Amino acid sequence: MSRKLILDVDTGTDDAVAIMLAALHPELDLIGVTTVNGNVEVRYCTDNSLRTLDFIGRSDIPVFEGIARPLVRPDFPIPRASKKSTGVHGQTLDIPAATSTRQHQRAVDFLIETYRAATEAITLVPTGPLTNIAAAIALDPKFVERVPEIVIMGGAHHHGNVTPAAEFNIWADADAAASVLAAGFRKLVMVPLDATHQALVSMQACDDMAALGTPAGIAAARFIGRRIRAYDSNQPMAERNAAPVHDALCVAYLVDPTVITTTHLHVAVETQGALTVGRTVVDTNARGEQAPNCHFAFHADRRKFVAILRETFARVAA
Amino acid sequence: MSRKLILDVDTGTDDAVAIMLAALHPELDLIGVTTVNGNVEVRYCTDNSLRTLDFIGRSDIPVFEGIARPLVRPDFPIPRASKKSTGVHGQTLDIPAATSTRQHQRAVDFLIETYRAATEAITLVPTGPLTNIAAAIALDPKFVERVPEIVIMGGAHHHGNVTPAAEFNIWADADAAASVLAAGFRKLVMVPLDATHQALVSMQACDDMAALGTPAGIAAARFIGRRIRAYDSNQPMAERNAAPVHDALCVAYLVDPTVITTTHLHVAVETQGALTVGRTVVDTNARGEQAPNCHFAFHADRRKFVAILRETFARVAA
Amino acid sequence: MSRKLILDVDTGTDDAVAIMLAALHPELDLIGVTTVNGNVEVRYCTDNSLRTLDFIGRSDIPVFEGIARPLVRPDFPIPRASKKSTGVHGQTLDIPAATSTRQHQRAVDFLIETYRAATEAITLVPTGPLTNIAAAIALDPKFVERVPEIVIMGGAHHHGNVTPAAEFNIWADADAAASVLAAGFRKLVMVPLDATHQALVSMQACDDMAALGTPAGIAAARFIGRRIRAYDSNQPMAERNAAPVHDALCVAYLVDPTVITTTHLHVAVETQGALTVGRTVVDTNARGEQAPNCHFAFHADRRKFVAILRETFARVAA
Amino acid sequence: MSRKLILDVDTGTDDAVAIMLAALHPELDLIGVTTVNGNVEVRYCTDNSLRTLDFIGRSDIPVFEGIARPLVRPDFPIPRASKKSTGVHGQTLDIPAATSTRQHQRAVDFLIETYRAATEAITLVPTGPLTNIAAAIALDPKFVERVPEIVIMGGAHHHGNVTPAAEFNIWADADAAASVLAAGFRKLVMVPLDATHQALVSMQACDDMAALGTPAGIAAARFIGRRIRAYDSNQPMAERNAAPVHDALCVAYLVDPTVITTTHLHVAVETQGALTVGRTVVDTNARGEQAPNCHFAFHADRRKFVAILRETFARVAA
Repeated sequence: MSRKLILDVDTGTDDAVAIMLAALHPELDLIGVTTVNGNVEVRYCTDNSLRTLDFIGRSDIPVFEGIARPLVRPDFPIPRASKKSTGVHGQTLDIPAATSTRQHQRAVDFLIETYRAATEAITLVPTGPLTNIAAAIALDPKFVERVPEIVIMGGAHHHGNVTPAAEFNIWADADAAASVLAAGFRKLVMVPLDATHQALVSMQACDDMAALGTPAGIAAARFIGRRIRAYDSNQPMAERNAAPVHDALCVAYLVDPTVITTTHLHVAVETQGALTVGRTVVDTNARGEQAPNCHFAFHADRRKFVAILRETFARVAA
Repeated sequence: MSRKLILDVDTGTDDAVAIMLAALHPELDLIGVTTVNGNVEVRYCTDNSLRTLDFIGRSDIPVFEGIARPLVRPDFPIPRASKKSTGVHGQTLDIPAATSTRQHQRAVDFLIETYRAATEAITLVPTGPLTNIAAAIALDPKFVERVPEIVIMGGAHHHGNVTPAAEFNIWADADAAASVLAAGFRKLVMVPLDATHQALVSMQACDDMAALGTPAGIAAARFIGRRIRAYDSNQPMAERNAAPVHDALCVAYLVDPTVITTTHLHVAVETQGALTVGRTVVDTNARGEQAPNCHFAFHADRRKFVAILRETFARVAA
Repeated sequence: MSRKLILDVDTGTDDAVAIMLAALHPELDLIGVTTVNGNVEVRYCTDNSLRTLDFIGRSDIPVFEGIARPLVRPDFPIPRASKKSTGVHGQTLDIPAATSTRQHQRAVDFLIETYRAATEAITLVPTGPLTNIAAAIALDPKFVERVPEIVIMGGAHHHGNVTPAAEFNIWADADAAASVLAAGFRKLVMVPLDATHQALVSMQACDDMAALGTPAGIAAARFIGRRIRAYDSNQPMAERNAAPVHDALCVAYLVDPTVITTTHLHVAVETQGALTVGRTVVDTNARGEQAPNCHFAFHADRRKFVAILRETFARVAA
Repeated sequence: MSRKLILDVDTGTDDAVAIMLAALHPELDLIGVTTVNGNVEVRYCTDNSLRTLDFIGRSDIPVFEGIARPLVRPDFPIPRASKKSTGVHGQTLDIPAATSTRQHQRAVDFLIETYRAATEAITLVPTGPLTNIAAAIALDPKFVERVPEIVIMGGAHHHGNVTPAAEFNIWADADAAASVLAAGFRKLVMVPLDATHQALVSMQACDDMAALGTPAGIAAARFIGRRIRAYDSNQPMAERNAAPVHDALCVAYLVDPTVITTTHLHVAVETQGALTVGRTVVDTNARGEQAPNCHFAFHADRRKFVAILRETFARVAA
């Protein structure tokens, strides 16, 4: 029996890999993709998501366009981020233009209505800024209780990427992220840089995927290859010729929870600091002042992650 | 020819007077009422709005329920506010229960769809926290340009009410208010405490309204009478036996712009201070660093305001 | 019997007028001048204070140099302020260089030691940023209780000058100001822009002072004339050909308390806002949540102020 | 040849061990001890420092009392801290009362005057809140350049102690700490919890010190034993029956720099966050936007540290 999920993405090279993994894995049922401003402008995120699904033969999965800016701050604060994003993601993914088109329904309405009508569990997997999710929470007082599990790519304890203190997805809409973390979801899993930086995909693994000859294998190799070149020149990891593929790790967790190791503790998001906006404040001491609200992944199993990618990308859409 | 408007309210005694003024004035065409958390919980705001419209024979005007909390801060910060609100507003207005019911569409969707489809100018008049408006702005990138004029009850330059620095509507969702003020509306009029505290309605004026014998006259006298008693005991105005009826002043402005005197200058909302959250920062010096974005009312004409109320409340629904 | 005082200044044209008033008025005994970074760099403040005292024959009054930066923020935030300061104050006052020299003791030590040894009441009159005073408070736990009265030029309720929300002296070291306001002084009088902008000195009054032929009259006319020209071109007052002489109003208050009208209420300083750093948050409603800690001058008597200046500047040092 | 140093302490059990190490090690010349509010009120810090020096026969080393509160925030924010401090430190150290007395000169004046007059290098070692140091920086513009090296116990990257984000010494006067980190010291070494939690002293090591039979051995065993019991019950370390002795690690570094391993990078202190006040924001990515200002110790060599303590405490004052 397959596990239903919705991906909320700012596609983006690693979002594209996450989409392919969710769309092709036999145990997953990707019922919709919602997009949000983030790595690139939302209209490019939408287009990139459509391209990715088309390319692997899954244009049957609907794509809904979401919010084009942070929820309450009018100016998207991306001077530094955008430059880096351009390197890692490009504006448009390097695969053919989509022939399918997005749905007319707004992403937030799709989220609210889908969960309202749901008769089975649907896991929510946001891998971009949390703007759409925070809007759904505010608009529908029952949204939180209707989501059985939310798996977020975002946050960082040991090392930020967009500032010394913060990871991009959380920082890019810190108010939204703070709202989501405090919302009281039944099960919230956070996959931060601490985990994703341990699940590096090497150039060798890319070559292996390309050699599969499948659309997914070819696209994944191309997207991840671009990431590796950008990381090596701008923010080298512990190992050269390898890069994190953050968003896909969230989807891999749905397939095999042991791909990450989580700790159950309290996490909140700083929205007001002079140096720390967007920081995920992790109560590592867990002295019990605040009840745990988050399964925070400090570790990831790189070998398992890469194996899941390769095995899944060997498949073609039925 | 009548002027179309939508009222976004947290009814509340003064919102109820604003609704009656908009629903009964012959030059105004109130096409819908949207509700928002504020003076009381949103479900009571909705119920109170329905009661008010029923009582004056205008249950044909649709009511849409809006957002039940501040847009990005999960806990509504109302310890002090709620107590005062209880005095000034009560939870349920003291008129018969409504027989009509609210629409199923969410307030934010009504706002977005109505402006999308509009062929005539519709003035937007928010008199509660700006949560619904900020959500509409975020969800629909074209919302701002489709609103020809927004007239907001909120803010304070000389004297706050909920804190020394801030007025309740702005403070109760400062993030939303900051977003609205910075959104770039073509014409934004702000009716702050500076104006409303000059447009006091006396007990004598209440008696005059009650003597009209109309439903609106009777209800207005009852609501304003309650306000006068609460203000006299909790936050006495310059004159005893009189109280501001903030929200109605916004509607009166649509009927006669000279009921307030505005200055065109720059206004922003503080969201991060330790003592000043929700303050409307008014650039009274207007040295030109920031372009004016707001017609801010420093003064009001009490006589005109009271006359508009009395004349309108002499009417009954056609 | 004369009233002893210490002036803590960032001289500056209006500080110079304050110094002359304190040094020449027969009922005042200016026992020392301490300087602080503010309108200009502290070394120029010191030099200007020495020049002023020399010029009127009071080089017997000792000058002590104080702190050269805000107490805890290393970079003095003066891009806008400095430009304006240059216009209003110039770097060096336009009177002959001083022949006297400053004392070796640091200003903060002079303040602490003088109050420790005092057998008579000494009023403390800071008319620049409150850096020295905050340092004295922190260094000597008994300093606050030894000061019988502190009269501060600073703050603004209705209109800021350096930002829409803040007045220069408070904004230039908001942390220090917050500390001073919260310190628990027995009697704290605040003379804000609200008062000083009502006590304008006209060009005609300058001419009258110059006509006195005394050193003080000549210098005052020159300093205030410069202020008038700068205000008229950069921040015009309600009346042209006139300017406030902020700091001198504090000293005039010592001579005649009725030169200002104060209200006893609670005032605190915002140190953390995004738009409101340095705002004096005045609890005008005075609903009693916080005990009054400040006599805040909302009004000034211009006629009395100008008369005090003219009468005093007719005098020459004994 | 011996290395001169000044210890700035809030004694406290681990400060006492630091004092003994500095006072007894043959290569160190402790020329003065300054005290500051922190673990306990400054008057107890002073008394505890005197007791410690007396107990080991070094009452020749002068003790100067410093500032009794954070530099600019009047209320010491210690609800949680004080409770924990009571457990770890007690108010008064459990050794005989001092017969010697503190100097009359204030700590900040001693610091300023000593560095002004210095003809040899003197290392400054603050192991409490940085209030005295920030005051010295503000009062004397040349202070920073006169200090050849400052070695600070404070900060935390991976785990705070007083909040999830912050370490006590930095948090207890975050404004002062921010000022010190930004001051431009020629060489600034920071010994944070990341290092001190790796340099645990076990109960067995305490027993070994006690067995030395020297005053220092006996006192160290007693102080550290108290720490171990408090840590085991309130904030257990990775290993039971062991505790960090933070402040002493700074002094050990002067004796043998290899007792810690530092990385040269940029560190700043957050003063304004809602959740992160007092966080040391460490730019671990070191992408070069901000020049390194700090040698931050991520690691410590426990074996070397314990050996230095034991060897030194075998000694008695000459």
